[in-house]
Amino acid sequence: MSNGELSGFIGVWLPRVEAEMRAVLAVGDDPVAAHYGMMRYHLGWADTQFRAQNYPAGKRLRPMLCLLTCAEVGGDPDRALPAAVGIELLHNFSLIHDDVEDGDEMRRHRPTVWRIWGVPLAINVGDGMFALAYAALQRLTARGVKPKLTLAALDRFTQTCVALTEGQYLDMSFELRSQVRVDEYLRMIQGKTAALVGACTAIGALLGGASEAQQTDLLQFGQAVGMAFQIQDDILGIWGDPNVTGKAAGNDILRRKKSLPLLYALNHEQAGDEAQRLLAGPLDEDQLPQVMALLEQAGARRFAEAQVQMQNAVALNALTSALGARAVESPLWALADGLLHRTA
Amino acid sequence: MSNGELSGFIGVWLPRVEAEMRAVLAVGDDPVAAHYGMMRYHLGWADTQFRAQNYPAGKRLRPMLCLLTCAEVGGDPDRALPAAVGIELLHNFSLIHDDVEDGDEMRRHRPTVWRIWGVPLAINVGDGMFALAYAALQRLTARGVKPKLTLAALDRFTQTCVALTEGQYLDMSFELRSQVRVDEYLRMIQGKTAALVGACTAIGALLGGASEAQQTDLLQFGQAVGMAFQIQDDILGIWGDPNVTGKAAGNDILRRKKSLPLLYALNHEQAGDEAQRLLAGPLDEDQLPQVMALLEQAGARRFAEAQVQMQNAVALNALTSALGARAVESPLWALADGLLHRTA
Repeated sequence: MSNGELSGFIGVWLPRVEAEMRAVLAVGDDPVAAHYGMMRYHLGWADTQFRAQNYPAGKRLRPMLCLLTCAEVGGDPDRALPAAVGIELLHNFSLIHDDVEDGDEMRRHRPTVWRIWGVPLAINVGDGMFALAYAALQRLTARGVKPKLTLAALDRFTQTCVALTEGQYLDMSFELRSQVRVDEYLRMIQGKTAALVGACTAIGALLGGASEAQQTDLLQFGQAVGMAFQIQDDILGIWGDPNVTGKAAGNDILRRKKSLPLLYALNHEQAGDEAQRLLAGPLDEDQLPQVMALLEQAGARRFAEAQVQMQNAVALNALTSALGARAVESPLWALADGLLHRTA
Repeated sequence: MSNGELSGFIGVWLPRVEAEMRAVLAVGDDPVAAHYGMMRYHLGWADTQFRAQNYPAGKRLRPMLCLLTCAEVGGDPDRALPAAVGIELLHNFSLIHDDVEDGDEMRRHRPTVWRIWGVPLAINVGDGMFALAYAALQRLTARGVKPKLTLAALDRFTQTCVALTEGQYLDMSFELRSQVRVDEYLRMIQGKTAALVGACTAIGALLGGASEAQQTDLLQFGQAVGMAFQIQDDILGIWGDPNVTGKAAGNDILRRKKSLPLLYALNHEQAGDEAQRLLAGPLDEDQLPQVMALLEQAGARRFAEAQVQMQNAVALNALTSALGARAVESPLWALADGLLHRTA
């Protein structure tokens, strides 16, 4: 498959991903319709009255990565479809809970589930979607995947779920600490973001019949893409355009979120003390320009962007190891690259 | 196995259940030690400083039901151990989230996880335990269970997770309604409680090599035991001894919890209007005696106790269909009976 065929691939498989997601969510009877209605709202399929709608719902990059990896190692993406959908549902379950845990009121320009229906129902809606993510994966055998291979995919999936909650724990614990080291931060995003992207490529490779060595390489590729993606997200959380991100300017700063640029400044020899002082006091729009100036002084953005480039290089190396010289021409590389040049 | 051998069975298998649970939880390194520490706290293995302790942690009745069912159909309980532990972890995950959703501050005479560490961390601790429940189940193949049978157990397990969140949704939605019918209530506890107890016996039967017909009977047995257990729990939530239950007297009334006795009174021809009026107004210890008198007038306790007896009869019929005339002598029946005569 050539680079230029990527959009063709997405054109074919995106509707199939949506159809499979809808098939998995086609459960529940009348008395529990609202439980699944809230899930459909979160996924962009319904409004707050549960009337059918089509809101922007993200690019389904994770399932696309899974299916594309399967195809790139010579497998039939159709067999990986239930896993791709399981991963997307796992991702969305974690977003529903993250929004509660972080108190985020908006996602994709719409109020979050907890903001509309309250925290208790939102927790339970997330739990329901977590269960449906497994239900999705367990549809693999119905597509002809052997039980042993299905179990191997489930093993990787569960490891990913465990890593996700470890990463989320670290993220929350950082907010209570005045100092977080860069290596601690990298460990956190490894769990919170990179593990899931790694699961996309690792499970895609597994179901596509890749060799053990290829599976390891493609896991590493996905993880590095995930790391780069998260650091990019941190950069956007501070310097992103509010009209594009849907979040207030300097949102992560005001929340004292220990994202990479901020913790780099907090650890910085010259700017660190002043940054610590500012973060310890009251923090609103008035203090924002001072914090932004300190980040500039510390070279925090430049540092974060260099980290993105470094993870990019790791990703390309791993992909080259898996696919040989054609890696850079591969649509997998184009998809990863597209992820990193997004602006929202 | 005779009835008298039940305590022997528990004596052998309870330590093995604990050991397997500890093996599943033996994950995570230093930076995430507190994430698993909070799980150990909830399970009764640690105090708030994560120092090893042995608090009362429930009787592990669900894993015992699973192992005992496996043994009663002629299987080796050792092979079902990972499933029994998966079910217990699933149960405990749901307790952690239920406590958040219901705002319950105490469980088993100790502050709940969210009460100590806050809602965001508690949600994530529950999610982590949910993932570990699957990790537990996926250990079945390592004990020699065939991949196909492991997948069948996982299917039942995931159906149970889905049912749990549907039941919890219904429970929460009832609190916002003035009227709930008895049949709606029964549907709710079917999902919230009975599905999980049914999973214990159904998965135990499956892994023990039971016939399809036996599996169906034993699923029904477990579900009926679960229904009876929940209604009994409702009775204790109103009339239970606070010193034994660890909850305030009339706790469920003050929270306007639509448990079976209360909703029976609310639907009662004579007492209903007055009950509706009382529930609509302010409700504290001053109004409690009036509500209790209304419940008495409506015969709410008598009605709930009759429902327990009815589910008991369904359970015994199903068990007789599975095991023949020896059902009433079976330790499974003794275990179910023990569940129903508890006082806390």
